[in-house]
Amino acid sequence: MSRTMNFSAGPAALPLPALERARDELLDFAGTGMSVMEQSHRGADYEKVHDEAIALTRGLLGVPDTHDVLFLQGGASAFFALLPMNLLEKGRSADYVLTGVWGEKAWGEARHTANLLGAQVHVAADTGTGDGKAKTWTRVAVAADLKQRDPSAAYLHFTTNETIHGVQFGVDPARPFPDSGKVPLVADMSSDFLWRKFDVSRFGLVYAGAQKNIGPSGVVMVIVRKELVAAGRKDIPKIFQLRTHAENKSLYNTPPTFGIYMVRNVLAWLQGIGGLDAIEARNRTKAAKLYAAIDGGPGVFRCSVERESRSLMNVVFRLPTEADEERFAKEAKKLGMIGLKGHRSVGGIRVSLYNAVEPAWVDALVGFMGEFARKG
Amino acid sequence: MSRTMNFSAGPAALPLPALERARDELLDFAGTGMSVMEQSHRGADYEKVHDEAIALTRGLLGVPDTHDVLFLQGGASAFFALLPMNLLEKGRSADYVLTGVWGEKAWGEARHTANLLGAQVHVAADTGTGDGKAKTWTRVAVAADLKQRDPSAAYLHFTTNETIHGVQFGVDPARPFPDSGKVPLVADMSSDFLWRKFDVSRFGLVYAGAQKNIGPSGVVMVIVRKELVAAGRKDIPKIFQLRTHAENKSLYNTPPTFGIYMVRNVLAWLQGIGGLDAIEARNRTKAAKLYAAIDGGPGVFRCSVERESRSLMNVVFRLPTEADEERFAKEAKKLGMIGLKGHRSVGGIRVSLYNAVEPAWVDALVGFMGEFARKG
Repeated sequence: MSRTMNFSAGPAALPLPALERARDELLDFAGTGMSVMEQSHRGADYEKVHDEAIALTRGLLGVPDTHDVLFLQGGASAFFALLPMNLLEKGRSADYVLTGVWGEKAWGEARHTANLLGAQVHVAADTGTGDGKAKTWTRVAVAADLKQRDPSAAYLHFTTNETIHGVQFGVDPARPFPDSGKVPLVADMSSDFLWRKFDVSRFGLVYAGAQKNIGPSGVVMVIVRKELVAAGRKDIPKIFQLRTHAENKSLYNTPPTFGIYMVRNVLAWLQGIGGLDAIEARNRTKAAKLYAAIDGGPGVFRCSVERESRSLMNVVFRLPTEADEERFAKEAKKLGMIGLKGHRSVGGIRVSLYNAVEPAWVDALVGFMGEFARKG
Repeated sequence: MSRTMNFSAGPAALPLPALERARDELLDFAGTGMSVMEQSHRGADYEKVHDEAIALTRGLLGVPDTHDVLFLQGGASAFFALLPMNLLEKGRSADYVLTGVWGEKAWGEARHTANLLGAQVHVAADTGTGDGKAKTWTRVAVAADLKQRDPSAAYLHFTTNETIHGVQFGVDPARPFPDSGKVPLVADMSSDFLWRKFDVSRFGLVYAGAQKNIGPSGVVMVIVRKELVAAGRKDIPKIFQLRTHAENKSLYNTPPTFGIYMVRNVLAWLQGIGGLDAIEARNRTKAAKLYAAIDGGPGVFRCSVERESRSLMNVVFRLPTEADEERFAKEAKKLGMIGLKGHRSVGGIRVSLYNAVEPAWVDALVGFMGEFARKG
């Protein structure tokens, strides 16, 4: 079997060693004579995996003692609602920075949730242009965009990386994470969590669906300041309260044990190859090669994202016609490269370069792009 | 490797063929050169699995067209809150029948949720005796217990099988599912879903966490009458609305793809061995042998559950002393039988006999019980 070069936006490629480890012990985990899926979540064998996944996260990122590391369910989409449910209250407002579709979705769900709670949400910045289906984003927000932020907001939410429009905060020093002042900073990092180190202490809360950089779908990782957990609402369902999961080490109810086990495998692989500094260097090299192929070619490929906002995780570009794009994806597929079509809402080509995407795959893609451009 | 005889309450044993299938194709699913975990949830290869899991459920149970089959996340514990969020409204009430700890938890979370919504919940029946930590249940509810039910309730909720106290509705014809009249009947079937056929058309909604009878943790299956979906609240977060998942075939956001794939594998195995009639016969035989060993011995084992309410899924019994119980579990473990300790809240012995527990394991356990009783 040859391994397909998977450039999908997510669920996405996983590191081969993490998958091989799962396969090798799928029927007999840690000599127990059972699959890890068959282990009680209250048993010592599973708990070791659970604890290791938390410890690896803490170690890789240097998560300070001021913050809890939680595993939740429901996807980032459920967390769009759980966040305001925990942190908003009547008469208060939360700020949202919109730099793409996912930030807009998070805001939409928060608005819906705030209505139910008698609270408000507020768009602190929106870098989009155009309306309705034609609305598009080509850059992240900068300090000047944030002049309207509410200094007494419950939190300020932004999306570190937008998968559909290919813009990302923090890649270029000129496009840092927003400064929220004394307001707790909250980030949806679903699509770029652990692509490199970041200063956790700056954040009130960070959340990430696992299915891009850290595991299979069905797991959401949350890193949250303990003070925010303690201050959260107590009148919402117990299962939705962050404190319930913080107080029970994410074992209040049965967690998605196999998903967390896979996250452990992925994080162990990440540590084994040198941790976040090593993966950052690898990710930067992969993206640099691809953007060079886009910009340096004979004009067949064009990326309209502002240079400083360009995502290292999701590289989006266009070809002269939609027919060219169709042919591009089709010919690439014949060479074993899949997941290259842009999101159905925007079209074009999208190349996702998450941690597990091998540098050799990018070399193969860049080679193909050169051929394609030459042959026309 | 010899396979451990896993009598855990959940996550529990899975059918070996379902696990072997997963192992064999873990790196190369359906000839795609990728793991099923790496497949896009919008791709044809994953969608086929997703559709097959739904079709197998429909086929095995004969789910009528009046009902949707959904896959959600968050565990049954999250559904304890999602249920009233969808179906309760200001001034209305829902009825709960309590026959064990899980029904009580569902009621507690519903009460919490109802407070937030300005609605009510009402205990229609509680077969428990004693208070606080000493509260115990030894039987399910019968018609006479339900005299206090509210004929205008939004729904009547009960728990078909209680894992901790070992009582189950519907095993004995004298202990049928409650009659809710015109009120929609709702059941938490987490611990006995698909142990046999049941008449889906009688139910407004049925839900089940997967990690007992149908798959790994992280997946919740819901079968719901379309009319109830349509009548559900629209002012709660979109991700929590059943209609969102019904309208999008549970693909509104990224579902737990690997978990649903495993459910597919388990259901395919179930169909392959003869479907629900075959598994019912197998389950009845397993439980009959075990209860015979309890009742027919020299008085070492005693089960205090009312005979007609005895669970075929979780068989609970006591030995003369706690030290005997400790020794029983320890000696069984040496013989490769695990998961036999009762829930930490009640002690004793608990034997879970879910679908994937092999008849040969029960024979081995019964043999050991005979030895244990003889030797004292």
